[in-house]
Amino acid sequence: MISIVIIGAGNVATHLFKSLENSENFRVIQVYNRTKEHLNFFNDKVDTTSSLNDLKEAEIYILALKDDVIEAVANSLPHNKALTLHTSGATSLDALKGLERRGVLYPLQTFSKNKEVDFTEVPICIEANNPKDEDLLEQLSLEISKKVYRIDSSQRQNLHVAAVFVSNFANYMYTVGEDICKVNDIPFEILHPLMIETAEKATKIGPFAAQTGPAKRNDLEVINRHHTLLTEKQQEIYKILTKSIQDLHGKEL
Amino acid sequence: MISIVIIGAGNVATHLFKSLENSENFRVIQVYNRTKEHLNFFNDKVDTTSSLNDLKEAEIYILALKDDVIEAVANSLPHNKALTLHTSGATSLDALKGLERRGVLYPLQTFSKNKEVDFTEVPICIEANNPKDEDLLEQLSLEISKKVYRIDSSQRQNLHVAAVFVSNFANYMYTVGEDICKVNDIPFEILHPLMIETAEKATKIGPFAAQTGPAKRNDLEVINRHHTLLTEKQQEIYKILTKSIQDLHGKEL
Repeated sequence: MISIVIIGAGNVATHLFKSLENSENFRVIQVYNRTKEHLNFFNDKVDTTSSLNDLKEAEIYILALKDDVIEAVANSLPHNKALTLHTSGATSLDALKGLERRGVLYPLQTFSKNKEVDFTEVPICIEANNPKDEDLLEQLSLEISKKVYRIDSSQRQNLHVAAVFVSNFANYMYTVGEDICKVNDIPFEILHPLMIETAEKATKIGPFAAQTGPAKRNDLEVINRHHTLLTEKQQEIYKILTKSIQDLHGKEL
Repeated sequence: MISIVIIGAGNVATHLFKSLENSENFRVIQVYNRTKEHLNFFNDKVDTTSSLNDLKEAEIYILALKDDVIEAVANSLPHNKALTLHTSGATSLDALKGLERRGVLYPLQTFSKNKEVDFTEVPICIEANNPKDEDLLEQLSLEISKKVYRIDSSQRQNLHVAAVFVSNFANYMYTVGEDICKVNDIPFEILHPLMIETAEKATKIGPFAAQTGPAKRNDLEVINRHHTLLTEKQQEIYKILTKSIQDLHGKEL
């Protein structure tokens, strides 16, 4: 059994803990969080602590923390010979450079408290500063998810910005759609199947082939009519994205 | 049995035909298309014609045509006492104003030849110029889909522009994500579960509550770092959408 201490008690920490509860190879022996009350979920399941000085000795430490505290906490760990991981997409492996054996275990998914996620389908991006630890990290990750990818720090940063586009910005497009529906007394649920289908189609045939709509067709009559229906702010977004699609697909005509 | 003639042989026409094949209340008795070769799919299933003069008499005519020819074809129909429908999201009911009984049957979905769609889950927006025909249209639509909504022309135009945001523009966000992956030698499939989950989450808890990311958190360090990774064109989109999310969610803080 390889022993693990999880530092942090948020969404990622909780998901990791649950994923490893039935593992035959890895065992979480302790969960730390600065704020005692956040440990309530863990208290009856595993040893917990709110003091870094009381951290147990383990083979792996997982820092499931906010980006801006990773480095400071890493430098305060009492046991610094173990493999230490952070779980951040936006943070370089170098944030752990005070430690001899360091790695990243980045689950690429959007987590909310209100919605369950099947962690076995969440892609995990891994990186370590030596090949042996990278193998150990891969073994650990395969206990959590079926989808494990070796991604270096530079790739991970780019992946993180790509995720902002496909998730945060796509979601903002939904927000605009919902606003237009609200103002016009249209149930937003009419658009739900289209949203799901658009995402699925892009994963199946690729977003370039999946592109449809007036911008792709260069249908100026519809584009101009749409302009008259939008607020100034919506127009600005409509304009730049229409032009981007025209530029991209116009080349193909 | 209520008789139907379908004018057009594209994706929508084909889906409508298939959906009605087993109906006990409606029967497609003829399919028209200007180009004979496009009728191949229908030839062994139903009477077909390439001449508007040979159109059979029917109780309903469905014009599943491109926006820009709807009005002209509607005005060329030899039988103009029947209920005549178009299937366009971007076209007003008035395009059929030459006809006494007119309606719209707009299936709100993105159709591609490469990907099958379960039509019973596709929302259908209906409108007619008199209540009796709207009831008939609802009856017809419920044979095709479980989700039927009464939506007037003004609402439908707004719905269409909302669909551009949640589908065409969301898909363009995927395209940018894929580009970033390609340039950095990252398999785009890593982002697939995130894309699906983002769409599903927005349909479940609403896109406003579902918003995550550096713009929402106002995480300027990450935002500035992302800027350095993007092309000029990508930066422009990143900037305007980040500002939009900040404006929207900043008000809440």
